[in-house]
Amino acid sequence: MPSVLELTEGVLQGDTTLLARAITLVESTHQDHQQKSYEIIENCLSKQTQSIRVGITGVPGVGKSTFIESLGTSMTALGKKVAVLAVDPTSSLSRGSILGDKTRMPLLANDSLAFIRPSPSGDSLGGVARKTRESIVLCEAAGFDVVLIETVGVGQSETAVHSMVDFFLLLKLAGAGDELQGIKRGIMEMADAVVINKADGANLKRALRAKSDFERALHLYPPKENSWSPRVLTCSALENRGITEIWDLIEDYVKLTGENSSFQKKRKSQNKYWFLQTVERLLTQGFYQNSEVKKEISDMTRKVEINEISPFRAAEELLTAYRRQLK
Amino acid sequence: MPSVLELTEGVLQGDTTLLARAITLVESTHQDHQQKSYEIIENCLSKQTQSIRVGITGVPGVGKSTFIESLGTSMTALGKKVAVLAVDPTSSLSRGSILGDKTRMPLLANDSLAFIRPSPSGDSLGGVARKTRESIVLCEAAGFDVVLIETVGVGQSETAVHSMVDFFLLLKLAGAGDELQGIKRGIMEMADAVVINKADGANLKRALRAKSDFERALHLYPPKENSWSPRVLTCSALENRGITEIWDLIEDYVKLTGENSSFQKKRKSQNKYWFLQTVERLLTQGFYQNSEVKKEISDMTRKVEINEISPFRAAEELLTAYRRQLK
Repeated sequence: MPSVLELTEGVLQGDTTLLARAITLVESTHQDHQQKSYEIIENCLSKQTQSIRVGITGVPGVGKSTFIESLGTSMTALGKKVAVLAVDPTSSLSRGSILGDKTRMPLLANDSLAFIRPSPSGDSLGGVARKTRESIVLCEAAGFDVVLIETVGVGQSETAVHSMVDFFLLLKLAGAGDELQGIKRGIMEMADAVVINKADGANLKRALRAKSDFERALHLYPPKENSWSPRVLTCSALENRGITEIWDLIEDYVKLTGENSSFQKKRKSQNKYWFLQTVERLLTQGFYQNSEVKKEISDMTRKVEINEISPFRAAEELLTAYRRQLK
Repeated sequence: MPSVLELTEGVLQGDTTLLARAITLVESTHQDHQQKSYEIIENCLSKQTQSIRVGITGVPGVGKSTFIESLGTSMTALGKKVAVLAVDPTSSLSRGSILGDKTRMPLLANDSLAFIRPSPSGDSLGGVARKTRESIVLCEAAGFDVVLIETVGVGQSETAVHSMVDFFLLLKLAGAGDELQGIKRGIMEMADAVVINKADGANLKRALRAKSDFERALHLYPPKENSWSPRVLTCSALENRGITEIWDLIEDYVKLTGENSSFQKKRKSQNKYWFLQTVERLLTQGFYQNSEVKKEISDMTRKVEINEISPFRAAEELLTAYRRQLK
């Protein structure tokens, strides 16, 4: 394994082989690897970049891979460097990533301006999300202009991805009947654009009807603080139509939010969120590794299990033992 | 407000007015109220009960209210006392609970053997789930034989409810086309029974077809550790058909898992989970209330926001300051 210095220099020079190895350190569960990955990230942090982070979500079957392939190649055609990352907490459960698989995006996978990385595995959404967030910093330091972050349209992974991107895109199908679900689950509220995919052939008419349905639905929300009005577009990733319009829209967004400073404001608040998430993770780790906690916890657990003590009382007592030990 | 002693005695005597007030303490964000609620729970904990906790999930539109009304009244008809609680983290976002609303269950709401409590509000799923778990203990101490816990079929609230019930029931519609989603999201894996609702009129044939589809799908999973084979049933909550069969099934489950001790084993592991959740919550709370943390955190946050320091380094430094202060 190359040294921290070699990896840092490799990343900063845009060497994708060393970038991939640095991300492997980020994804490792070994403490030594994690420490090294933090050093690399720290070294990369000061590099000023102008990247754009785009989150893409949609339920299975909506055509995410084809869409990302189409959007990605339209950007590399403009000379932009595109990284594709993923947050898929289900991939660790199913023991195989369903996202980020290079065979799903054959054109991008063979594009020298593109870099595709499957979803990291992890025992929790928090772990998976953290690894992806750290990989974003490395990709940007390696000179990628655009980072696309894909997620499955189920569960809280969308909220996690929303908290690490500049622009959040919701991919939909016409007539899938899940409009209400998107609204109920708060996804619609997070979207900066709703894109209705597979607007081709016999489906075109329905797609246009869905477009006005979604536009009406978006009107129900109060205006966003950054003064951006979410837009609804249709596209056919398969026929490669409507794709450049999406990229134009994202650039409009970057321009508007750059001018009114909300772009930087959002990044700042995301950094803060990430900081607090890390604090809480380390705090918990330190707690469970504490010798007094290690000593007491199994006896406490036994008592809790048989209702001899309530979980609350037991938790309070364990914390008291922990704090006494720290002194 | 009655005293802790009065509330405890009221709960233990099955007084639903005092039970409701005790739950109000559980749901309160005031520290004083929380402390009181812990004392009441502690007092109630030693009471031996034979209750059954049933989780019920299903996407909006599947007919959960009518189903719970139908299942609940079939149980009160047998003389059983039924409590209905809910975990709906979206209710705090939409500023109004969509679950547990008494007008949705007019028969149960007017049934002297039933107790309905809407979903508590909270700033997070964790908070909402904790409050409901604590309310379960109180309902059981008050003599309720069955506690039905309803949740929306979206997001991680299902996992939370699954972690607090003995039996987990997934409510479905025929031909809703979301079979794959249930599988992908791991809900099917958690289900002890899949019930296809609205199996009536013109829908009956489709419901029977869906039944064999789900049975086939369930066969794909490895046998459960507790040796229970999840079953698929059809019912019409509206016409009140197939409901007693569901209750029979739940009793079969309780019998089987009681005999092979997995019922108690599951409760124990849920108690443990609850204990560790509480530990982590209190640990985090204590951290943010620490004077050194309070002093340092805003300066740290500012540096993190402008990328002067990485979130990881900042988190490490803040924890060092915290531990130094504790000594």
